[in-house]
Amino acid sequence: MSDRPVVVLGADGFLGWPTALHLSAHGHQVIAVDNLVRRRWDRECGTSSLAPIASMPQRVRAWKRTSGRDIEWRRLDVCDARAMSALIAEFRPSAIVHFAEQRSAPFSMIDREHAVMTQLRNVEGTLNLLFALRDLAPDCHLVKLGTMGEYGTPNIDIEEGFITIEHNGRRDTLPYPKRPGSFYHLSKVHDSNNMEFTSRIWGIRATDLNQGVVYGCETDETALHPTLATRFDYDVIWGTVLNRFCVQAALGQPLTVYGRGGQTRGFLDIRDTVECIRISIENPASRGQYRVFNQFTEQFSVKGLAELVSQARDAHGLSTTIKHISNPRVELEEHYYNAKHQHLIDLGLQPHLLRRTLIDSVIQTVERHRKRVDLVALQKPNVDWRSGGGRAAADRQVTVA
Amino acid sequence: MSDRPVVVLGADGFLGWPTALHLSAHGHQVIAVDNLVRRRWDRECGTSSLAPIASMPQRVRAWKRTSGRDIEWRRLDVCDARAMSALIAEFRPSAIVHFAEQRSAPFSMIDREHAVMTQLRNVEGTLNLLFALRDLAPDCHLVKLGTMGEYGTPNIDIEEGFITIEHNGRRDTLPYPKRPGSFYHLSKVHDSNNMEFTSRIWGIRATDLNQGVVYGCETDETALHPTLATRFDYDVIWGTVLNRFCVQAALGQPLTVYGRGGQTRGFLDIRDTVECIRISIENPASRGQYRVFNQFTEQFSVKGLAELVSQARDAHGLSTTIKHISNPRVELEEHYYNAKHQHLIDLGLQPHLLRRTLIDSVIQTVERHRKRVDLVALQKPNVDWRSGGGRAAADRQVTVA
Repeated sequence: MSDRPVVVLGADGFLGWPTALHLSAHGHQVIAVDNLVRRRWDRECGTSSLAPIASMPQRVRAWKRTSGRDIEWRRLDVCDARAMSALIAEFRPSAIVHFAEQRSAPFSMIDREHAVMTQLRNVEGTLNLLFALRDLAPDCHLVKLGTMGEYGTPNIDIEEGFITIEHNGRRDTLPYPKRPGSFYHLSKVHDSNNMEFTSRIWGIRATDLNQGVVYGCETDETALHPTLATRFDYDVIWGTVLNRFCVQAALGQPLTVYGRGGQTRGFLDIRDTVECIRISIENPASRGQYRVFNQFTEQFSVKGLAELVSQARDAHGLSTTIKHISNPRVELEEHYYNAKHQHLIDLGLQPHLLRRTLIDSVIQTVERHRKRVDLVALQKPNVDWRSGGGRAAADRQVTVA
Repeated sequence: MSDRPVVVLGADGFLGWPTALHLSAHGHQVIAVDNLVRRRWDRECGTSSLAPIASMPQRVRAWKRTSGRDIEWRRLDVCDARAMSALIAEFRPSAIVHFAEQRSAPFSMIDREHAVMTQLRNVEGTLNLLFALRDLAPDCHLVKLGTMGEYGTPNIDIEEGFITIEHNGRRDTLPYPKRPGSFYHLSKVHDSNNMEFTSRIWGIRATDLNQGVVYGCETDETALHPTLATRFDYDVIWGTVLNRFCVQAALGQPLTVYGRGGQTRGFLDIRDTVECIRISIENPASRGQYRVFNQFTEQFSVKGLAELVSQARDAHGLSTTIKHISNPRVELEEHYYNAKHQHLIDLGLQPHLLRRTLIDSVIQTVERHRKRVDLVALQKPNVDWRSGGGRAAADRQVTVA
């Protein structure tokens, strides 16, 4: 293991915080960085984490008390190029994990302001980072969170970042064609293209983790103390689908499926997210290598997930209904989907496959915080892909830093 | 022909101005729009057009005197979303031609500031336009300038925007994989992805013109009067390669070829550029169609072009030398290159192929303005793809509007 630290950008987020803890637990010296804008977006959208979340200083102190380990906390915006460069110059990290982007598809679809803000700030932050690496830490390994949503739903197998194409009697291995489904997903495609380029011309070491939809709310480390909990989103802007189903099930509400529900995606347990990051860091890309790992463990359709939740409730003698509502997104509702995800397995990932016990445990977490559920947030109108809108649009305020 | 006007964004530029004239000459009602930032970038970079260029009001008056036709001139920035929307609402154009982007690869490679500015402003302008079309002119046809440089130099044939891939026994037609060669070229890839998405979800009519390298300096319309001339760039930031060779030849200097000179690209005459735009407008994309035309007429290697210029001088008994200098760019110097360019031909384009007479005429233009050649600008160090730099970086000023 390198004796240089690992910087985690976006360390206040749903996955950034558990990643910071997991890396620290495994002996990495961790610098946790965030601009805290996610908490302000909650206020803007009228959303909040179901589980109460502590401030970053509180979290870091709780981790020290619990584990005896130090995490250094820095408040910093990746779009502040000068501060970013100073950070890299100060720590000369061996690796940087980059979660510090606006990561909600519905948020990016609210209106022009949210689309522009999502794309410009996500692209700018990553560009700042790439230039800082070129100039100050050319050997540092960039581990960047992409998304499986970059690929869309092609009618051929999805490979990991690149595909070998035979065409008119010739052959080349080229970046996998992308057809993403929101301005947010597009921002990740822009980042991927910028990263591939800078690996090629500057020799940047880069791993692009095209992550699937994450479920679950606890890792070994966040479970150690309530102050270490990470956020749990269940609203239509920030919540991921299985977590939202679990909240609906806990409240005895119908599970709401968009359209026919045949939309199929890659999914993974939050405990696998943090392991994938650790594995990527401990098996770095080489100089000039831009590699892509598809970071998920199983494929499910939305309707299939709803049925799993319903079956988990049945096992406790509880009945759940599934309600198909009109799809606010523009997407295929029945389609071929076969995405490869071998690279991380080859590096040692041992997946936590989705079991009824996980669904039970998420529902138990919801029940613990039942009084905090905002029924309005749970039921509010979705952002429509065609016309925008949604509660967040009401005040047309876009917080950018 | 529609009775609604055509808006030309970037109408003060090298190609925007001849396009505005050409469309007007063919009976279109033209609204010419620009924020004039290109003239300020000249001051920033210490560059200038070889041919003197008049102000936009002077040009528009000269066109009225020469042709009897009106072009309406508006100073406006595409990144000013409110002004853009007001413009679309006022004119409800049948088509918008979008040239209003930072279009120099070396400029984008100077440093972080220039890279970020190029990508953010190019992406933002196009997003503003797409939202304005969705909300105010859903039937308007967007004709957007892309670049052949989006594709890079793959080892398979380059198709026009999309490629049918057979993979593991299945088949799909997907966006052609892109591997561009500069932050500028990447900005056009980002735009292409955003456009494909908005055609898919909002039904935008869009034509993406992946243009090759343009040579020549006159069209039928700009040649009518000196006040109608368009800019002629010959420096390493803004000049295109054949025009630069002609300036070097006129001055009796060696033609400087980057590296081995086997870099092959698609090229076209400026007179074909304006025709391609006219043809695209008069054969619009349908609702929800995102189509890509590769807009060039012939392929040449850089070395091959230098040899053509040298042969044109030989014919007048003048000797020219070709000098290979170290390549400031990171690119393959020998590679396969076979790009399709059939769609515009099918719609009626009659190419002006490169002939000695064109080279002679460009050299004559240079000789007419010989006293205006800035030898320092011609010979100044190139922007290096690995480390940035160049004269423009000296003051680190980036004008953004």
